[in-house]
Amino acid sequence: MEIIFASGNKGKITEVKNLFTSIEGLKIIPLCDLADVPEIIEDGQTIEENAFIKARVIFEKYGRPVISDDTGLIVDQLGGEPGVHAARYAGENCTYDDNNRKLLSELSQFKGPHRAKFLCCAVYYDHTRHISVLGEMAGEIIGEKRGISGFGYDPVFLPEGYDRTLAEMKLEEKNRISHRAKAFNELKRILKLAVI
Amino acid sequence: MEIIFASGNKGKITEVKNLFTSIEGLKIIPLCDLADVPEIIEDGQTIEENAFIKARVIFEKYGRPVISDDTGLIVDQLGGEPGVHAARYAGENCTYDDNNRKLLSELSQFKGPHRAKFLCCAVYYDHTRHISVLGEMAGEIIGEKRGISGFGYDPVFLPEGYDRTLAEMKLEEKNRISHRAKAFNELKRILKLAVI
Repeated sequence: MEIIFASGNKGKITEVKNLFTSIEGLKIIPLCDLADVPEIIEDGQTIEENAFIKARVIFEKYGRPVISDDTGLIVDQLGGEPGVHAARYAGENCTYDDNNRKLLSELSQFKGPHRAKFLCCAVYYDHTRHISVLGEMAGEIIGEKRGISGFGYDPVFLPEGYDRTLAEMKLEEKNRISHRAKAFNELKRILKLAVI
Repeated sequence: MEIIFASGNKGKITEVKNLFTSIEGLKIIPLCDLADVPEIIEDGQTIEENAFIKARVIFEKYGRPVISDDTGLIVDQLGGEPGVHAARYAGENCTYDDNNRKLLSELSQFKGPHRAKFLCCAVYYDHTRHISVLGEMAGEIIGEKRGISGFGYDPVFLPEGYDRTLAEMKLEEKNRISHRAKAFNELKRILKLAVI
């Protein structure tokens, strides 16, 4: 069986392919392997809505089952920001570095620890069925970047109970504890038992 | 395990309780058995959105797993109307009879057969997981009411391949072919295998 993964993000593609390797006969196809990929306008109010928008647009184009996700970063001292806008926090077409710089700059006015949590919504959609799973990882934002693995806010996020940032962990270790891993592992479990 | 069914509609409650009796140890609790039921404003643009709104409002109030549904009636000659507004087609607080009268009156300007389909979206929600299943039943709207079983548009809906309306069928027969049965049976299958 083939499922399209509605993402062009190389970091996510590696993580998700890795998570799904244990399902025999399942092939995950990233958007970069498809022709004429439509533009996806992520104008949802929540990560659940945005993940579903991605899945629906891609399903309507290719007519095949889709998995997708969206991630939010909730920082308590910033009233929940950057929230659903985590990927574009420093503006359209910004880099991971731009986002991290903006986040550390906004937080510099507050005393630490800067409590935060990552949320990930992982979705499966095939028109008849829409399965959506939320994964969460609590932690804090530290005052400087540490580590070079992963992507996004990984260098400034210290998961609760760990003394290394996500960017200081190997992919296998991050994939055991991350919000995305929790969401996709539960989605995978449901798909394996009841859908695939 | 107890799951709240976010509906006050007696017809639906009977149908859904009937469908779920085969899961041992599962108790379906209708809204009428709960205190302080919040008002649910179904302002979604689609039946999927409305079904999810009901589930989320009730989950947020009681903190327990919820199933819910929403139904739409798509009539080809009416450009897809009444669609998501099927329950309130003849206005707020209208009766089933008001809706049926309005539908037959609108269709009287067209020659039959009046092709139509029922859609049902059945939802399970427990904050971490949101599972949504679509069920469909094709048929036609006939020019007069026939039968006294069921509820809603059942007396004017003739399912494809049958010579009796839904209101001329026994509940057991309707529950084998209806949009709601298809949606809830698939939802039940997924819940039984992967959630409950």
